[in-house]
Amino acid sequence: METSQRFAARVARMKPSAIREVLKLTQRGDVISFAGGLPAPDLFPIDDVAAAAARVLADRGRSALQYSTTDGLAPLRAKLAASTPGARPERVLVTSGSQQGLDLIARLMVDPGDTVAVAAPTYMGALRAFDAYEARYLSVASDDRGMQVDALADVLRQRPKLLYVIPDFDNPGGTTLPLERRQALVELAAEHDVLVVEDAPYRELRFEGDSLPTLFELDPERVVHAGTFSKTMAPGLRLGWLTGPAAVIERATYAKQAADLHTATLTQAIADAWLEGGSWDAQLARVRDHYRRQRDAMLNALERSMPPGVRWTRPSGGMFVWVTLPQGLDAGVLVRDAVARGVAYVPGAPFFANGGGAETLRLSYSIATLEQVERGMEALGSVVSDALAAVRA
Amino acid sequence: METSQRFAARVARMKPSAIREVLKLTQRGDVISFAGGLPAPDLFPIDDVAAAAARVLADRGRSALQYSTTDGLAPLRAKLAASTPGARPERVLVTSGSQQGLDLIARLMVDPGDTVAVAAPTYMGALRAFDAYEARYLSVASDDRGMQVDALADVLRQRPKLLYVIPDFDNPGGTTLPLERRQALVELAAEHDVLVVEDAPYRELRFEGDSLPTLFELDPERVVHAGTFSKTMAPGLRLGWLTGPAAVIERATYAKQAADLHTATLTQAIADAWLEGGSWDAQLARVRDHYRRQRDAMLNALERSMPPGVRWTRPSGGMFVWVTLPQGLDAGVLVRDAVARGVAYVPGAPFFANGGGAETLRLSYSIATLEQVERGMEALGSVVSDALAAVRA
Repeated sequence: METSQRFAARVARMKPSAIREVLKLTQRGDVISFAGGLPAPDLFPIDDVAAAAARVLADRGRSALQYSTTDGLAPLRAKLAASTPGARPERVLVTSGSQQGLDLIARLMVDPGDTVAVAAPTYMGALRAFDAYEARYLSVASDDRGMQVDALADVLRQRPKLLYVIPDFDNPGGTTLPLERRQALVELAAEHDVLVVEDAPYRELRFEGDSLPTLFELDPERVVHAGTFSKTMAPGLRLGWLTGPAAVIERATYAKQAADLHTATLTQAIADAWLEGGSWDAQLARVRDHYRRQRDAMLNALERSMPPGVRWTRPSGGMFVWVTLPQGLDAGVLVRDAVARGVAYVPGAPFFANGGGAETLRLSYSIATLEQVERGMEALGSVVSDALAAVRA
Repeated sequence: METSQRFAARVARMKPSAIREVLKLTQRGDVISFAGGLPAPDLFPIDDVAAAAARVLADRGRSALQYSTTDGLAPLRAKLAASTPGARPERVLVTSGSQQGLDLIARLMVDPGDTVAVAAPTYMGALRAFDAYEARYLSVASDDRGMQVDALADVLRQRPKLLYVIPDFDNPGGTTLPLERRQALVELAAEHDVLVVEDAPYRELRFEGDSLPTLFELDPERVVHAGTFSKTMAPGLRLGWLTGPAAVIERATYAKQAADLHTATLTQAIADAWLEGGSWDAQLARVRDHYRRQRDAMLNALERSMPPGVRWTRPSGGMFVWVTLPQGLDAGVLVRDAVARGVAYVPGAPFFANGGGAETLRLSYSIATLEQVERGMEALGSVVSDALAAVRA
């Protein structure tokens, strides 16, 4: 192929994740990294998964290792529907992680040049999924409560094909969309006939307060909801699901059949057996407790370590704190100083589909120890303080 | 979404598999089905998989349940490279079955309206994968030794983006491309600068004779090779792989990252541990012996049951026999008579990208018992004989 670079047009937009580039910087063993978004492996229910795998292979190994239907194992779909208010089993499609859910929806909706409305900032992996279908983006300005309604109204008037949103404990913003904004969002989407994609990977990781209704609950004929076991059970199973309007789920099923036939029968059967085992609530409690302590440690450390003028979000769930540096500082430049002092983060700019965000960065508190959080924020604080002093000198 | 049917153009081409439609006909318990292409579940190494799963979760559960790199687990990639002549580990991408390999290659190469050269007939699942990228097809006439060289030369002069071929024990044809045709194929592909996709799901299921070199071995810088564990180990793991030119595999990895991040870590780790266990050769011998006996039974039964004028292929591997009925008979019409008499097959027409093939049908001998093969061919023979009598009357 040296002589034949006959790739499709969409290939020009494919690139490795910006996060992975930062992760390379952190290969040095002595760097404390807040860059990745990996779940804490201590929380994986390893023994339960092993027991479920043994049970499944002993009881029904022949079917657990055979091809299965594209939509997914019926008992698992029934459980997913039961745990998703408003969902019906026949409208649940099991996917290979929620990332595949985003890919399938983009495949159904996006012709080259079509627009997708996204928050500024938003999840980079969603942009990569939409990029594969040559989407353009309309950015919706966001604050510490997610998408702003006025900005959203302006954008939806341009009738994008999709509105992509993470209402609970956003990646990267750590923000949660309040009820009144959720209601306004589905009303505006209906008014302008826009399909909403609700990405909900962190929804179960709520630390305090009551759950808010999903966008899907508010308008099940307008919203496709993408769920995942990656943050609550284990990402290495690659298990997610879509639920939404019948016409969308039906076509997403055809699209998935062409994409990979179906999600691994064995991992589906393991998850189903594990859910049957009844330790789901205990697992969720364990996961929430852990990340709540991590969040508290990071917010306290930021308070102690950051110079005046630095702002950050105070997430009530999820894995991320979003930091805004004083004007004049560039988090993409500072990251090299930070790594030199032994601490890493993800610069915020790549989370903006249409540019901007040079002064922002994302911190993940998911896997660092409490002591690393303390030391890491101290190092980061001194990097920022020094940079500020240099700018003001 | 009742009011908003704003789907992308590619959705118009999405449809459920024609095979699944026939499978619905066979839901009646008393139909002997040769329609599906399911591997025989008695051959699944259930105990070995259970032992591998237990070992992986006990020894390295944290990493086996965590996110992993998009390209796949390094030890598994090394083993796959070692078992694929000409491959190098850094050019192996683990995929969610070989179906995903086809999807990724189409994603890299096919802009709407681009052409893909395929055999007539060819694997329907490949057509569905290419359809998602709005491919058009150039059909290459085939005989009982696969694609004809003259027809291929004519088609490649039109410079399709891809040439898709199953050289070993083709689905649906059951044919195997001889060495001289393989050599002509890669030479013609080089001359016209066409990327070749070699789909090799049945390659290990050879019943007799020596293996022929893969197209990838003949020209590793021109051919992308798609492998799978689905027919040798178990399809429910959804494990396949791509290997090929560096520029293609690198971009396929970016494309996969956007599509589903990576293939399930757990199933990869299980396959890797199982291969380490050393029972691979014994498993292959068991699988080959089984399908050889099945093939023999079906060829013998066809010989006994079919009226003169019916022709069929004599596969030296794989799972399928391809039957051509005398002119004037339509296998798509006859299938209802066949099901009424208790036997099912897949009509051949949907395997032709550009029409034709009304008189053809596919038989799979993979899961029927020997007694069912006998009874089923007898029933099919009488359906064909009666239809012939009616046509000649």
